[in-house]
Amino acid sequence: MALDEVTITRAILAEQLRILMEHLELDVGVVGGGPSGLVCAALVAERGKSCALIEKKLSVGGGMWGGGMMFPRIVVQEEARRLLERFDISYTEQAGNYFVASSVEAVAKLTAAACDAGVEFMNLTTVEDVVIKESGRVSGLVINWTAVEMARLHVDPLTISCRFTVDATGHDACIASLVERKTGAIRVKGERSMWAERAESQVVHHTKEVYPGLIVTGMAANAVAGEHRMGPIFGGMLLSGEKAAQLILERI
Amino acid sequence: MALDEVTITRAILAEQLRILMEHLELDVGVVGGGPSGLVCAALVAERGKSCALIEKKLSVGGGMWGGGMMFPRIVVQEEARRLLERFDISYTEQAGNYFVASSVEAVAKLTAAACDAGVEFMNLTTVEDVVIKESGRVSGLVINWTAVEMARLHVDPLTISCRFTVDATGHDACIASLVERKTGAIRVKGERSMWAERAESQVVHHTKEVYPGLIVTGMAANAVAGEHRMGPIFGGMLLSGEKAAQLILERI
Amino acid sequence: MALDEVTITRAILAEQLRILMEHLELDVGVVGGGPSGLVCAALVAERGKSCALIEKKLSVGGGMWGGGMMFPRIVVQEEARRLLERFDISYTEQAGNYFVASSVEAVAKLTAAACDAGVEFMNLTTVEDVVIKESGRVSGLVINWTAVEMARLHVDPLTISCRFTVDATGHDACIASLVERKTGAIRVKGERSMWAERAESQVVHHTKEVYPGLIVTGMAANAVAGEHRMGPIFGGMLLSGEKAAQLILERI
Amino acid sequence: MALDEVTITRAILAEQLRILMEHLELDVGVVGGGPSGLVCAALVAERGKSCALIEKKLSVGGGMWGGGMMFPRIVVQEEARRLLERFDISYTEQAGNYFVASSVEAVAKLTAAACDAGVEFMNLTTVEDVVIKESGRVSGLVINWTAVEMARLHVDPLTISCRFTVDATGHDACIASLVERKTGAIRVKGERSMWAERAESQVVHHTKEVYPGLIVTGMAANAVAGEHRMGPIFGGMLLSGEKAAQLILERI
Amino acid sequence: MALDEVTITRAILAEQLRILMEHLELDVGVVGGGPSGLVCAALVAERGKSCALIEKKLSVGGGMWGGGMMFPRIVVQEEARRLLERFDISYTEQAGNYFVASSVEAVAKLTAAACDAGVEFMNLTTVEDVVIKESGRVSGLVINWTAVEMARLHVDPLTISCRFTVDATGHDACIASLVERKTGAIRVKGERSMWAERAESQVVHHTKEVYPGLIVTGMAANAVAGEHRMGPIFGGMLLSGEKAAQLILERI
Amino acid sequence: MALDEVTITRAILAEQLRILMEHLELDVGVVGGGPSGLVCAALVAERGKSCALIEKKLSVGGGMWGGGMMFPRIVVQEEARRLLERFDISYTEQAGNYFVASSVEAVAKLTAAACDAGVEFMNLTTVEDVVIKESGRVSGLVINWTAVEMARLHVDPLTISCRFTVDATGHDACIASLVERKTGAIRVKGERSMWAERAESQVVHHTKEVYPGLIVTGMAANAVAGEHRMGPIFGGMLLSGEKAAQLILERI
Amino acid sequence: MALDEVTITRAILAEQLRILMEHLELDVGVVGGGPSGLVCAALVAERGKSCALIEKKLSVGGGMWGGGMMFPRIVVQEEARRLLERFDISYTEQAGNYFVASSVEAVAKLTAAACDAGVEFMNLTTVEDVVIKESGRVSGLVINWTAVEMARLHVDPLTISCRFTVDATGHDACIASLVERKTGAIRVKGERSMWAERAESQVVHHTKEVYPGLIVTGMAANAVAGEHRMGPIFGGMLLSGEKAAQLILERI
Amino acid sequence: MALDEVTITRAILAEQLRILMEHLELDVGVVGGGPSGLVCAALVAERGKSCALIEKKLSVGGGMWGGGMMFPRIVVQEEARRLLERFDISYTEQAGNYFVASSVEAVAKLTAAACDAGVEFMNLTTVEDVVIKESGRVSGLVINWTAVEMARLHVDPLTISCRFTVDATGHDACIASLVERKTGAIRVKGERSMWAERAESQVVHHTKEVYPGLIVTGMAANAVAGEHRMGPIFGGMLLSGEKAAQLILERI
Repeated sequence: MALDEVTITRAILAEQLRILMEHLELDVGVVGGGPSGLVCAALVAERGKSCALIEKKLSVGGGMWGGGMMFPRIVVQEEARRLLERFDISYTEQAGNYFVASSVEAVAKLTAAACDAGVEFMNLTTVEDVVIKESGRVSGLVINWTAVEMARLHVDPLTISCRFTVDATGHDACIASLVERKTGAIRVKGERSMWAERAESQVVHHTKEVYPGLIVTGMAANAVAGEHRMGPIFGGMLLSGEKAAQLILERI
Repeated sequence: MALDEVTITRAILAEQLRILMEHLELDVGVVGGGPSGLVCAALVAERGKSCALIEKKLSVGGGMWGGGMMFPRIVVQEEARRLLERFDISYTEQAGNYFVASSVEAVAKLTAAACDAGVEFMNLTTVEDVVIKESGRVSGLVINWTAVEMARLHVDPLTISCRFTVDATGHDACIASLVERKTGAIRVKGERSMWAERAESQVVHHTKEVYPGLIVTGMAANAVAGEHRMGPIFGGMLLSGEKAAQLILERI
Repeated sequence: MALDEVTITRAILAEQLRILMEHLELDVGVVGGGPSGLVCAALVAERGKSCALIEKKLSVGGGMWGGGMMFPRIVVQEEARRLLERFDISYTEQAGNYFVASSVEAVAKLTAAACDAGVEFMNLTTVEDVVIKESGRVSGLVINWTAVEMARLHVDPLTISCRFTVDATGHDACIASLVERKTGAIRVKGERSMWAERAESQVVHHTKEVYPGLIVTGMAANAVAGEHRMGPIFGGMLLSGEKAAQLILERI
Repeated sequence: MALDEVTITRAILAEQLRILMEHLELDVGVVGGGPSGLVCAALVAERGKSCALIEKKLSVGGGMWGGGMMFPRIVVQEEARRLLERFDISYTEQAGNYFVASSVEAVAKLTAAACDAGVEFMNLTTVEDVVIKESGRVSGLVINWTAVEMARLHVDPLTISCRFTVDATGHDACIASLVERKTGAIRVKGERSMWAERAESQVVHHTKEVYPGLIVTGMAANAVAGEHRMGPIFGGMLLSGEKAAQLILERI
Repeated sequence: MALDEVTITRAILAEQLRILMEHLELDVGVVGGGPSGLVCAALVAERGKSCALIEKKLSVGGGMWGGGMMFPRIVVQEEARRLLERFDISYTEQAGNYFVASSVEAVAKLTAAACDAGVEFMNLTTVEDVVIKESGRVSGLVINWTAVEMARLHVDPLTISCRFTVDATGHDACIASLVERKTGAIRVKGERSMWAERAESQVVHHTKEVYPGLIVTGMAANAVAGEHRMGPIFGGMLLSGEKAAQLILERI
Repeated sequence: MALDEVTITRAILAEQLRILMEHLELDVGVVGGGPSGLVCAALVAERGKSCALIEKKLSVGGGMWGGGMMFPRIVVQEEARRLLERFDISYTEQAGNYFVASSVEAVAKLTAAACDAGVEFMNLTTVEDVVIKESGRVSGLVINWTAVEMARLHVDPLTISCRFTVDATGHDACIASLVERKTGAIRVKGERSMWAERAESQVVHHTKEVYPGLIVTGMAANAVAGEHRMGPIFGGMLLSGEKAAQLILERI
Repeated sequence: MALDEVTITRAILAEQLRILMEHLELDVGVVGGGPSGLVCAALVAERGKSCALIEKKLSVGGGMWGGGMMFPRIVVQEEARRLLERFDISYTEQAGNYFVASSVEAVAKLTAAACDAGVEFMNLTTVEDVVIKESGRVSGLVINWTAVEMARLHVDPLTISCRFTVDATGHDACIASLVERKTGAIRVKGERSMWAERAESQVVHHTKEVYPGLIVTGMAANAVAGEHRMGPIFGGMLLSGEKAAQLILERI
Repeated sequence: MALDEVTITRAILAEQLRILMEHLELDVGVVGGGPSGLVCAALVAERGKSCALIEKKLSVGGGMWGGGMMFPRIVVQEEARRLLERFDISYTEQAGNYFVASSVEAVAKLTAAACDAGVEFMNLTTVEDVVIKESGRVSGLVINWTAVEMARLHVDPLTISCRFTVDATGHDACIASLVERKTGAIRVKGERSMWAERAESQVVHHTKEVYPGLIVTGMAANAVAGEHRMGPIFGGMLLSGEKAAQLILERI
């Protein structure tokens, strides 16, 4: 078959536009493609909600790819083992009820599950601002290409609307920090020193709606709450993503 | 259960060392985690060969994540549709027998398949040199942390051995270029201008053993052969990865 | 009237896609938005040809904005005065039959004229490669976002087709250089030292089809021909753009 | 006619000096060449006031060139449609009474109109400081080459006087911020989160003289007032520029 | 004997892992390889305590290598002469009871002594955080590769535990500052202006346990205490390292 | 005793000047402070020759500090074990007659030995050029501060004379390359691919006087000879430094 | 005569050391080589005081070289004309009793005069800190090579003593700011907006001893006092330097 | 007297324009403000020729400010002593008939002499190209602001004419290299290794007209001739500048 470059271009543009137009008004906008964001997105999409995951980098997965100090393994405790199994991530058991998995496999399997559930990925995209109108609720995300920011170009953003926004941006808690700066209505307390046990046990507790329409999850949840830092262990993050999905599904 | 940071650290180090020690002498070392590298690695590992995929970045997937001009879609032609299906990548059909898939899903599914097949991923790792001894064959890879190079530190590399090395590094054809520079025995001709039809139809043909022990695949194969540039279409790359795996399985 | 951010986003995306889809197969692709490119694009579009001007920067106008050494004035000689008048650019006359205009006005008026003629502008867009197939003719342009290159991201390009390509990229003669590197069929000799009189008198002469489908204009024409460098004077560039348009209109 | 480089140099220097000397004591100094600055400058110059527009970049137009997320289209609402027509900018109508125009054409036409009205452009020029004497009024601008700042050279500035200064520098509100820092007499509250409807409806209201001799317009007006952020829509900015011109013409 | 690259790699990995596993639970973690850190580490290890010295750079020695203004000599006063002798550092005597030594020799001899005493060096390693649990005591160090930070990669750290941590990081007092930021329980006052005599006489006094489990030494001790800056003289730093070792040996 | 900052300054300057003046006319100038340079310098100084080691970085030791891939261990084979013992470097024995030592200890002990032998260290110093007069012999080194080069300042160098110069600058073979570029009389062939066994067995052979007055050692010797690259093993480098010292002692 | 590079090196080192040793205990240390610093240094040295001028750049002259906006002319008013004449700087008279001189000539003549008066120049030297002992007086300067800071090297400084220190570092008022930060005893208010007349008339008034042993001059004097910014006019700076010299000569 | 900022601005612009207009057609254009350029410019201007010195940096003096390795002293041999005296540069005599002067004084006095002789300085100015017309003679210089190049702006240059051009740009021999690249008629051989005696004795010999209208002097003369490098000694450069002036005065 003869290949035609312009037809290929047309196919990409047409398909992308069609999908993008369908995702300008979302049920859920998840910001940040680390483990808690991926789990949350997969679970809400699986239940039929329209969901996009907005990731500022080229690839999703965040810091999980690198394991601990570039040794590409992650550790999960007993409580979260069922999530490894749910997402088909293989593991070995170590002394002390720890389960070690390949960090690369973990990212691939969580992402694949989110794709299968119907999550639309907007990678290379930065959230510059949120929309808050008279209702005093986060009702939209102001997005731009990350490349525009990296290249220090002056280009205006566009806007999508979301019934719920999930801040899964890690310890910077970017969206909660934006809301803090713009409204003063919440306070991002910042992570305290590392104390894995406590941080792991509290992260699900801190996963909550911190401002109307805005749910925080994973390290962002702990950072908003002023909780201790999580150790190099991912169980709490997976469980927190699950909790975030539950909170949304209850409200929507 | 009480969590202990040091136990977690110990678990990561012990597991990583165990696996690393098992992968110092490989059947196949695939360099570069783009589509052809992932396919090749998955297929040889599936057949029980020990295989590591060495990727210099934090994440695998290469340029595939960004689709075309940051519109995260990829196009595959009819000939390669069966590979989409084999790797469980969903697609829609467009006019002219083109199949459009999500670029994010494509990366995730290929990576997941490679993991399931038993490929060991060494990400954040750069190949500095190859081992060529009196046999005149590429018999090992000299590796270092990418971070060392990025931080411009002066730190020596380590070495692993491979019965076969696959250069899946894209149009730079890094490994073939290293062999060209060190031995003068091969020549990397470089890509010619874009002509998608021809490049797609030739890439499987150019996938070959260009030096004893060294197989080139994907854009690297076309770059070595002085072939035209491939359009924004991924069928040829998937097929080339499959061909590379076949060549190795025939020889090993 | 109530304003809705998502409706605005939708309006921009829909309109842009509609126009882009209409401009994937062009009569003329002009690369570079300096004076000769703008004149050429305006004149071919005025005659009903579909034409896009591809500019790698955020703004068109190139070096013309800055006049000479940041003094924002440009000089035009008698021969090109009629083009100032044609594009409604005001000027004052100086001793020796030189006409001095505001460099800002010159950019604005040439760009406005091109818009009125129906030229579609693709700014922030880089040409990475050309399409040359078995016909041995430049038949398309491989484009990407400039921001992708500036941010050193690895993202694949898309392709548009053009019956004629105009290289108006200045003394780098980027498109001609690409063709030189990929085919070896032409040679870009490079500018010689400055000699304004000769360069001005020859630039129209050097404006020609240097490879099937590729016309060079302005400083790019002189650079390909190994002509002397043009002084801080813009008459020759305007006349060269006019000549390029004529060459295309004769052939199309 | 023989061309002489030195005569050309002499023509540029003489003409530029003549014009510059006429613009050291201005009626109006507009700082920032985005849409509100261009409209304001065009309208005051049209009424015979001496006016210079000082722009720190090489080109005027600001963020308007890039449309929304590099899709080069801008949207204007019904209230500002007459300004599109006044400046001869073509548009198409979209659902919901939105009018979409080419961002490139918009910049070109606004700039051309300002040139025709007699505005003098000082591009590549940064405002380092303002002159405030015993009268407690902004009575001059301290300017330098932007290139000097970019090259981190230590070179002193020069000064021009203005009866009125217009801060059209966007959401940084550079001139108002300078006055805040130097006098403490005003406060720049900063933009709040995005809420296009409210921001658009208030920007004309916030366009005012915030300190004797200093008028804020466009995004700078909203930033000083602590107003919500404007969506990717330009009607309010055009209307704000018109209002700024009216305020000056009433006072001068 | 035939050399085998993979055997060498295996030897390095196996030996390093063995030693690392033995040093995950330390008696003493010294952070910073300048003179006071080296002296402290050497003295505690000499008494049989397990001790690692964590240094963020490739080499230990800190600012001592460069002497004063790149003249590679250091000065020690009478009180510390015995430490020069203890570590076998040769010197000459100058007027006024000052002893001048080679800065290179000083680093080499202190490091050699620490090695002989059994200190394990973790160079190229950054301390990102500390572990503080319910006991309110610094009980561990959260470490990462310095190269990861220099290359701006997003990779998670690992953790080691220490009964005592020594902050020997110089005037930044990095560990004390971390504890200040995370707990608010101590205050790092910062260095005052230079006054060598006073600073030298007080540095031993300021060497103390400033938070449970955390001892400060050398310039870090003076920085925490708000003491004057030390002159280009190293006696106080050596004595402070000795004091830090004594404090630990009393408590352990 | 009262401390006086100026007296300390005076002591450093006076002592440094005295020593520097004694080292402007050297028997041996060793360039590069890696293992072969340190061994060579220690051995010639031990025999009473005046010797300076010129190192461009702040610290000596070169790449040895980082071991292999930042695991701070080095490997030495049987042939060089006696040099570990001679320099009092402790080691453990691994399978296959390899001896593993701490990379930090190795640097410290070699440096300490060189100091004890009377080598003068000029660290932070770059060699910009060599002196070659009518005799056609390298008779001096043109030196400058490394900081001057790093800060891109324009400052002239100074010159010292050496009866013999040792190029111990690693695989760049900086001094041999300078001589190649300036005289054309020698040729630096560059390293070939890695082959540890051969490289180790040949490095002592390649350690020779390649130009009158210039001896190459370690990786520089192999790079000049076009030899294969050395593995992550240091025995050959130690032996090569010993050979370089012998060659000089025979000639001087 | 035969030239010998080592003899030249020896001559430079010996002469520089001799002079440096004579300048470690100064009557006056002037920091900053702009116009006020040069005038002050010249006048105190002329009266036989030992004086060094410490300049962080390679060349003295500061911002004066570039005139106004890179037009290399400076303006002086009537009151300071006698200083132009005293330092033999030629000028032309312009309307309004302004005197215009070449900025290059001004730097050269002021520097030449300082040299003739016996000022010792320490260029490429940064002041890192001041010495303040129990007397509560600035009694010394802690200096380092600027190149060390530019190259981000970690190297310790040296110290010189001064009976008086002059802060002539311009509007940053570096030395006064150091004293403010270290003691809290003075306050640097910062420059207000430009108002040339007032700033010129007040700068001599603000030239004073702001802390025991520390005199501020030129723009630093105005910055400490919170005075308005000086216009592009140098009379006040020359007069301020003269005043600073008088204050010192009265006290010494 | 009341000061007015705009009057000052006007004075600078008017005076600068007047002088610049007088210097667009020069007898001599000296490029590079190091010692040989300054001497040459001073001597031709003293004889009444119109002469401008074009310097790309903010300050003239080049590498002379920094002496040798930042020790600010220069050495001159007996033959050039009379030039020190002619330019009123004080010196001390060292063993071996060397004369040591302050490098700062040397720059200041040479520059002051050039100013007194009537040389016009164009600092912050880069020579981008030369004018060579049918006569085959360098007849003009194409200049731009250095800041434009440093800020990577795209701005066109202006042109001045010169009867003679002097390349005093140091070992890069920038102007000769431009002529080599554009015409191929001359060859710049590049400096050989350091040999002070020979280089000093030959530099006057190599000072010559290497292309019609172009005279090379100082290090540029030696670089063109492929001569040895000059030591840290300035006599030859002063004598070469004198010779360049003589060559011009003979021809003009």
